[in-house]
Amino acid sequence: MKILEMRPAPNPRRVRIFLAEKGIEVPFEQIDITKGEHKLAGFSKLNPMQRVPVLLLDDGTAIAESVAICRYFECLHPEPALFGSTPVEKATVEMWNRRMEHSFLFHVMQVFRHLHPSMAEMEVPQVPAWAEANRPRVYETLCFIDKELSTRLFIAGEAFSIADITALVAIDFMKPARLARSPELTSLARWHDAVSGRPSAKA
Amino acid sequence: MKILEMRPAPNPRRVRIFLAEKGIEVPFEQIDITKGEHKLAGFSKLNPMQRVPVLLLDDGTAIAESVAICRYFECLHPEPALFGSTPVEKATVEMWNRRMEHSFLFHVMQVFRHLHPSMAEMEVPQVPAWAEANRPRVYETLCFIDKELSTRLFIAGEAFSIADITALVAIDFMKPARLARSPELTSLARWHDAVSGRPSAKA
Repeated sequence: MKILEMRPAPNPRRVRIFLAEKGIEVPFEQIDITKGEHKLAGFSKLNPMQRVPVLLLDDGTAIAESVAICRYFECLHPEPALFGSTPVEKATVEMWNRRMEHSFLFHVMQVFRHLHPSMAEMEVPQVPAWAEANRPRVYETLCFIDKELSTRLFIAGEAFSIADITALVAIDFMKPARLARSPELTSLARWHDAVSGRPSAKA
Repeated sequence: MKILEMRPAPNPRRVRIFLAEKGIEVPFEQIDITKGEHKLAGFSKLNPMQRVPVLLLDDGTAIAESVAICRYFECLHPEPALFGSTPVEKATVEMWNRRMEHSFLFHVMQVFRHLHPSMAEMEVPQVPAWAEANRPRVYETLCFIDKELSTRLFIAGEAFSIADITALVAIDFMKPARLARSPELTSLARWHDAVSGRPSAKA
């Protein structure tokens, strides 16, 4: 078993934090997207979508998509539960993880992909107007999360979950996306300090 | 228990098909987004993201996000399994459902939202260049799915799953998005005939 990833990219970080929270060790192999290694035949066969990370099982099964990889390990190692335990918890974590993906990480990524010079050859065509349309949505979501976090410890409730991992990766990826943080959002800052202080955040 | 939805929208259809496949009946209440009913205080309190569908439980718990609603019902009524059964199946269905969301339904929706005149007041700003950037990706994904479906019955394997529901809703939403189908993709057509012929497709 191994995970093919690119260390600086945001999605592989979600999987590394998830595994660190579970205390699971898996060997990693680096795929350098800046050198086009994701387009080589060997990798494309594992993931025709040509994206990292990919979990490669010993029988040759390849699982792509960060959350699919995380869910595989949740099935094998249910504790600590990072996708919730009861039906309502599982649905609530799924809801919040998706909100963090669609209304936060996604917008940060679009700003990065459609404005950053390093993405000019990867994102064709870059649409700067689309990046700018995403910028205010990042701040709307930050305000929304801040308000929510004024009433509870973590994104999806009183327990740390995969929704916190997605939100942490999104907020930290604002820096390469050249999006300034909002220091006046004090509940968000309290949460960010807490999740950044967990050992998993360094994974 | 009830589900607040808007019948013509693609995401509520995903939930209706899912429930029909499970044989679960839940009362629906219509929220007319074209009249701004999703922005009224009552609905916004249930889902601050102001999107349909929302599952409202009898104790007042509100679950938004289509896949979160589906997962709630999968937990309560595991058979037939639409998210997979074994850990590898669950990861594989998650992977394919996400591929269908991110590389298919998403692109179709972006073409619709950023080009269709009816969306001018909902999607501000509309970015036509972004719609056009999504158009070729729809066809790349259709070709990819066609190739995959030449080797198996359904999107994620030999069993019908939520990935088929997402793909069916995406392909049918190409019509309002004014995207022409590709009749030369025969495996895709075979699959589309099969899933469209299931009673759930009319839900």
